[in-house]
Amino acid sequence: MFYHDSKLQYKVRVDKPNPAFAKLLQQAIGGIEGEIRVCLQYLFQAWGNRGPNKYRDMLLDTGTEEISHIEMLCTAVALNLEGATNDLKDKIAGENPIVGSIMGGMDPRHILSSGLSAMAVDANGVPFNGSWVVGSGNIAADMYANVMAESTGRVLATRLYEMTDDKGMKDLLAFLITRDAMHQNQWLAALEDLGGVKENLPIPNTFPMSDHIKEFDYAFVSTNIEKPAPAQGRWTSGPSIDGKGEFKHVQAYPTGEVPDLGIPDVKGYAQAQQMKGGDDDSLLGNIKDTIMP
Amino acid sequence: MFYHDSKLQYKVRVDKPNPAFAKLLQQAIGGIEGEIRVCLQYLFQAWGNRGPNKYRDMLLDTGTEEISHIEMLCTAVALNLEGATNDLKDKIAGENPIVGSIMGGMDPRHILSSGLSAMAVDANGVPFNGSWVVGSGNIAADMYANVMAESTGRVLATRLYEMTDDKGMKDLLAFLITRDAMHQNQWLAALEDLGGVKENLPIPNTFPMSDHIKEFDYAFVSTNIEKPAPAQGRWTSGPSIDGKGEFKHVQAYPTGEVPDLGIPDVKGYAQAQQMKGGDDDSLLGNIKDTIMP
Amino acid sequence: MFYHDSKLQYKVRVDKPNPAFAKLLQQAIGGIEGEIRVCLQYLFQAWGNRGPNKYRDMLLDTGTEEISHIEMLCTAVALNLEGATNDLKDKIAGENPIVGSIMGGMDPRHILSSGLSAMAVDANGVPFNGSWVVGSGNIAADMYANVMAESTGRVLATRLYEMTDDKGMKDLLAFLITRDAMHQNQWLAALEDLGGVKENLPIPNTFPMSDHIKEFDYAFVSTNIEKPAPAQGRWTSGPSIDGKGEFKHVQAYPTGEVPDLGIPDVKGYAQAQQMKGGDDDSLLGNIKDTIMP
Amino acid sequence: MFYHDSKLQYKVRVDKPNPAFAKLLQQAIGGIEGEIRVCLQYLFQAWGNRGPNKYRDMLLDTGTEEISHIEMLCTAVALNLEGATNDLKDKIAGENPIVGSIMGGMDPRHILSSGLSAMAVDANGVPFNGSWVVGSGNIAADMYANVMAESTGRVLATRLYEMTDDKGMKDLLAFLITRDAMHQNQWLAALEDLGGVKENLPIPNTFPMSDHIKEFDYAFVSTNIEKPAPAQGRWTSGPSIDGKGEFKHVQAYPTGEVPDLGIPDVKGYAQAQQMKGGDDDSLLGNIKDTIMP
Amino acid sequence: MFYHDSKLQYKVRVDKPNPAFAKLLQQAIGGIEGEIRVCLQYLFQAWGNRGPNKYRDMLLDTGTEEISHIEMLCTAVALNLEGATNDLKDKIAGENPIVGSIMGGMDPRHILSSGLSAMAVDANGVPFNGSWVVGSGNIAADMYANVMAESTGRVLATRLYEMTDDKGMKDLLAFLITRDAMHQNQWLAALEDLGGVKENLPIPNTFPMSDHIKEFDYAFVSTNIEKPAPAQGRWTSGPSIDGKGEFKHVQAYPTGEVPDLGIPDVKGYAQAQQMKGGDDDSLLGNIKDTIMP
Amino acid sequence: MFYHDSKLQYKVRVDKPNPAFAKLLQQAIGGIEGEIRVCLQYLFQAWGNRGPNKYRDMLLDTGTEEISHIEMLCTAVALNLEGATNDLKDKIAGENPIVGSIMGGMDPRHILSSGLSAMAVDANGVPFNGSWVVGSGNIAADMYANVMAESTGRVLATRLYEMTDDKGMKDLLAFLITRDAMHQNQWLAALEDLGGVKENLPIPNTFPMSDHIKEFDYAFVSTNIEKPAPAQGRWTSGPSIDGKGEFKHVQAYPTGEVPDLGIPDVKGYAQAQQMKGGDDDSLLGNIKDTIMP
Repeated sequence: MFYHDSKLQYKVRVDKPNPAFAKLLQQAIGGIEGEIRVCLQYLFQAWGNRGPNKYRDMLLDTGTEEISHIEMLCTAVALNLEGATNDLKDKIAGENPIVGSIMGGMDPRHILSSGLSAMAVDANGVPFNGSWVVGSGNIAADMYANVMAESTGRVLATRLYEMTDDKGMKDLLAFLITRDAMHQNQWLAALEDLGGVKENLPIPNTFPMSDHIKEFDYAFVSTNIEKPAPAQGRWTSGPSIDGKGEFKHVQAYPTGEVPDLGIPDVKGYAQAQQMKGGDDDSLLGNIKDTIMP
Repeated sequence: MFYHDSKLQYKVRVDKPNPAFAKLLQQAIGGIEGEIRVCLQYLFQAWGNRGPNKYRDMLLDTGTEEISHIEMLCTAVALNLEGATNDLKDKIAGENPIVGSIMGGMDPRHILSSGLSAMAVDANGVPFNGSWVVGSGNIAADMYANVMAESTGRVLATRLYEMTDDKGMKDLLAFLITRDAMHQNQWLAALEDLGGVKENLPIPNTFPMSDHIKEFDYAFVSTNIEKPAPAQGRWTSGPSIDGKGEFKHVQAYPTGEVPDLGIPDVKGYAQAQQMKGGDDDSLLGNIKDTIMP
Repeated sequence: MFYHDSKLQYKVRVDKPNPAFAKLLQQAIGGIEGEIRVCLQYLFQAWGNRGPNKYRDMLLDTGTEEISHIEMLCTAVALNLEGATNDLKDKIAGENPIVGSIMGGMDPRHILSSGLSAMAVDANGVPFNGSWVVGSGNIAADMYANVMAESTGRVLATRLYEMTDDKGMKDLLAFLITRDAMHQNQWLAALEDLGGVKENLPIPNTFPMSDHIKEFDYAFVSTNIEKPAPAQGRWTSGPSIDGKGEFKHVQAYPTGEVPDLGIPDVKGYAQAQQMKGGDDDSLLGNIKDTIMP
Repeated sequence: MFYHDSKLQYKVRVDKPNPAFAKLLQQAIGGIEGEIRVCLQYLFQAWGNRGPNKYRDMLLDTGTEEISHIEMLCTAVALNLEGATNDLKDKIAGENPIVGSIMGGMDPRHILSSGLSAMAVDANGVPFNGSWVVGSGNIAADMYANVMAESTGRVLATRLYEMTDDKGMKDLLAFLITRDAMHQNQWLAALEDLGGVKENLPIPNTFPMSDHIKEFDYAFVSTNIEKPAPAQGRWTSGPSIDGKGEFKHVQAYPTGEVPDLGIPDVKGYAQAQQMKGGDDDSLLGNIKDTIMP
Repeated sequence: MFYHDSKLQYKVRVDKPNPAFAKLLQQAIGGIEGEIRVCLQYLFQAWGNRGPNKYRDMLLDTGTEEISHIEMLCTAVALNLEGATNDLKDKIAGENPIVGSIMGGMDPRHILSSGLSAMAVDANGVPFNGSWVVGSGNIAADMYANVMAESTGRVLATRLYEMTDDKGMKDLLAFLITRDAMHQNQWLAALEDLGGVKENLPIPNTFPMSDHIKEFDYAFVSTNIEKPAPAQGRWTSGPSIDGKGEFKHVQAYPTGEVPDLGIPDVKGYAQAQQMKGGDDDSLLGNIKDTIMP
Repeated sequence: MFYHDSKLQYKVRVDKPNPAFAKLLQQAIGGIEGEIRVCLQYLFQAWGNRGPNKYRDMLLDTGTEEISHIEMLCTAVALNLEGATNDLKDKIAGENPIVGSIMGGMDPRHILSSGLSAMAVDANGVPFNGSWVVGSGNIAADMYANVMAESTGRVLATRLYEMTDDKGMKDLLAFLITRDAMHQNQWLAALEDLGGVKENLPIPNTFPMSDHIKEFDYAFVSTNIEKPAPAQGRWTSGPSIDGKGEFKHVQAYPTGEVPDLGIPDVKGYAQAQQMKGGDDDSLLGNIKDTIMP
């Protein structure tokens, strides 16, 4: 069973909104290398787990952590889209071809369909596909599937990191890269449990480890609110599989704030009642006078 | 941010495993009327919410509850598939055409791809599609989308209820039907907040309310571990929108047990190490002698 | 602009409902060889037509006729599903494995999702896909695309014809086969117009022409309610391209009746108000007493 | 059975072709909020209707009207793409990066695949998906599905309205917004029939009603060529559900012209015979001399 | 550049045709664990390879071998469908409910759409999806993707092996399992090259190695017709990664025969000219007399 | 069974890399008009062929040739993406809006997901779909499907030819256009065999034949390494169906070179070991010092 906190697992800050970067972030949400895939993959593997319970527990912990990752990325998309509707008309109307290029770089459905928020699609607007959720019932095959998902996910995150100068976004991506590296180590540790891997195994390696977020390096994060004693799996203590750190066990806690996206832009045609700030009706009154029949 | 409990929100019991019913249950997991859709839909709407925070809070609470519903249905699928590999060879080989009919009624990928566990697909094996996750940024349109999702979800659940005699499954489905009815009332209450609906609105009505699970009727379930004071939304107190009950506010708690699916069937070609019961290696030894090179 | 008639283009009669045949008919509705594809393909080609208007007129006439074909097939699906909910519980519960085989042969979503009516999917429940709607803007390529669509559609219809003994269904399929043959001739005639084809071109040929419905053989059906003078295209007069008949021009008219599917089965969980026969409320009263809270 | 008129339901005029706007319009054609979805959804619900015939009649009338909407939007796409092939080579070759931005904003398949006409895809080129066509057999669930489809469709149309300064396009979109509002009222009226809704229900409300096209406001448009007496449904007379108008019954008639897209651009590689204006062969002769071997 | 041989890589023999098993085999052709996926995945990785050429060469060799695997499985599907049209009418018509169960267990599109041959779909008829073709440009991530594809592919093949008693099919599946094991070893060997893995790594291990086809065990098969000297990769000599064999280098050669599927069944509505055996027209004459107009 | 050569069928040269053109080329790889579709379509038709073997042989020859076409197009995509990562950060960060327009015109997944190589998707990033692979078992319907695929493929190739000034790309596209024209002639020749077509049939005709690559005009290319005697099909000798040439039989041979894509860009986060040129480790050493922990 599942619970939530109104705060985020890690802080999400966008210094300068960029709708083109919002489009790129979608790959990490709804793409085949993205977080919806790993989230559902680990949870479905947990829910179908037969055999030793330690695998189920591990998969539930990390599958639940991934929901928090989707949440942070969706918040990042919404913040990057802030203000994208302004003078949109000029842009698309082509009166100013230079700003029109921004339109070319963004996902039009971020305006048309979602009203400046994230969608369950990839960077080209192709919807998330349930066929990507792999759980074979064979724990070795599943662990390789998980290593593969985190490997390609980590490569994606490093490329997103490369494509932005926004300090807030780089910080969030460094956090996600750190967790992807840990999760790979974790699934490889499970493979060691299953009879193999005594020495260093590669993880995608051209992103410098010195840019990892130390607090979360090699940390197995348990999201279980019952706070059981640290599991005895190979993935919670001892040397990490990449040979560069020590596994540790951490109880999940939020380090970010409650996100607040503010009031919708009038040109986005949200409902009039949404124009209120929090629960203050006064703003609504003005809007109603202006735009409602 | 998200947490989990190792127990289930409601008990899941299958009196007599039925692989054909497992196939039907997939519609409620990965189908367009299913729980992955509502789960992601409410969460994406929450994460993109602009305007009054009460909508975000409500959506997070219920979106999180829906993860628990996916979990229970996936557990139900796995339990219904118990034993499905036994004498499978005979069935498909056609030596016994009567049992062959059971094969015709089950999803072959439950054996071939998932090793007797749930998948992110519908009752025909068509994968979940992210395009179904609707969040428009207009709260009225979104509430109608949510009413629609729960309406068709409730109709689906009543038909599943009709198609089984298994007491455990009927009990689980009655729970889900009860929650679907509440969730419809809840989204309609939000629409009342937005200026409409003063009297009874229909919800799919040919399933008798007397078969609802009373404990969860008209209960707004908060999954927030911070346990905030009950929200002041129209959906937590006062008469329900269908005119037949009173809204109440309930803090989420598990009423089910920790699921245990046992040891995989040897014929399903799980990994040898999974054959152990819990962490007892002795069983593995025997299996290793028999089937591993 | 479009209009409709409440009657069908051709009579639809099912002598003995057969839910497994309903599933097969779905291929002719939502499959790649099906009628939604040709309907949208011809209409999109018409709406994007540049150059001689005769092509646009022809495409509009036939694209509109294809809507009537979808309508008849959907009616046929609904009629074949009549009664499929009865004792469904027994079937799926596996108490009677022989009748269970019928469940194996039907599309479970015909019960779960559509309440015994047609869906926009193929015979395996895979949804119709807009990528199949080909309109290239090159009239030669488009005419080949249309010949291909009708060729594979005709092969499909002949196989459906082979798979049923129901006289009503055979009659409907013979009508559709007749029209598929004409439509192939029609697109080939357009290719002749474009510089080729002076002699016999093959159409799938193992279905005997003597089983065609004569009234509609080689008839170009105009669905234009303005009733313009017969078009001068190669496809409205002169010898047919297969060398076996003469083209003729016919103004569209219904030859079928207004379809009436009757009252829904109580076990299908339709809305109570639908249980009424026509607009007679008395039946509803009884149902309400019985099944509504 | 279905018929067509060669004229459009409402005039379609593009003052200044804009290929980037053509791409956005695709969302209203082949997107989940678009017209193919509502068209097929209402028609499939009609064809599967059991119970009172008044629902079937209403659904057929409006489903048929939606085909006319697809037709107008497809015409609008083709007109916005007029001339898009000219000096395309320069653009993509990157010799002029500013005009290149226009390429970034358009759908490349509008040139490559469709030859400057509409496709059955959304604004990102993702194909229409038949899974979106919802018809559950429960009239209450279906009416909510229809309200949801029109709500999100209306929000989409208002955003498209916001993104253009082209007077012709704004006029067409105002027409579609007007009809979307009416159709929502209509489905809500059916819900009132089913036992609920006595007062104002919200429809997405930040688009001013004063910009509606009055002639079509609150008008139930019957597309039945048999011109039956006005139906007695709640949706053809009496106060509208939003409390702001009176329902009326209107027999469908075209108010637009016959569309004429002219001659294809030579660089689009249409067939040589399409280069003719109407049926005048002289133009073809010249083209043949120039570009055909 | 690519070439072919008219013979098969390994013999394909079906002792007793079984249309239900043909459906299951589709998972190994067009499913996410299937051969089209690995074939395209290795070839796309080869075609996009930057860096040391040895990776490109290895990927081309194995990608080409996988085409031969698709070919053998498609041949197996066609052979299993032999005779499936016979008395089909009886089956679907439900006159004989027991044989009807066979219909329930087969893919209806094997009759309706493909005329008793394989399709590019999975065991539920869901089409192959290009999103499964993973090539990230990072060789470590790609090798994990390949290990995962072969792991899940091997698990699938062992389950298919379990589900049949047909000696010919078991022999073919043992060949494919043997190659899947080798290919896993091969990709793991590439990972060793990249800095890791010194000892035994698990591959799905509950299928006994004694059932492998020895001739192809641990054999790196080169499909390059230029027959270059054996590559120096870790994957062509030395101990295998699973620690149970020695890698060897083998030049590809066919060990199977030219497949011959015979003459189509008349009831499948193939073209009359296909009824000929080889190029003998006499049979056609008879058929023409009987079934062609 | 299949083999490969390390050289290409025809030379692939890109004079000036253009990532926007790389995106357009994807339509010819993974689009419905693209080469994966025809490749799999011809091979599946071959593998399911019943009746005269000459059709199987022809289909295998040409299906195998199409793999070589995919290979060349994928090589062309990779070469057009060369250098696309350079100063990517600036572009997406929007500091230079003009270069940002280039980002708008390229497929972001070419950077994020594939590391500057081709993917199995179309020009909008929509994945290849196995439903496009048509093989009906009726040779006439299949030949029309093949003519249609080549017709729309040829129209696509001519439009790509129009959109580039790069001499290398124009040369490759002229080669592909030449082969598309031949393949259409070939399938039409098979239709003549089946009883029709005595005179000129149109193929998309606004691309001048004088721009064809003469060496490959009207040449039936056999990819069979057994080098059998020229087949006697209508498609290997005699006048071509379009009446403008003579068929000839040619044994396949490479005319291109071994492709070499060089070393990956450091910013693309490939694996460090890929940075080596060929097998020279020295470059790796430097990179390791710089970017690896």
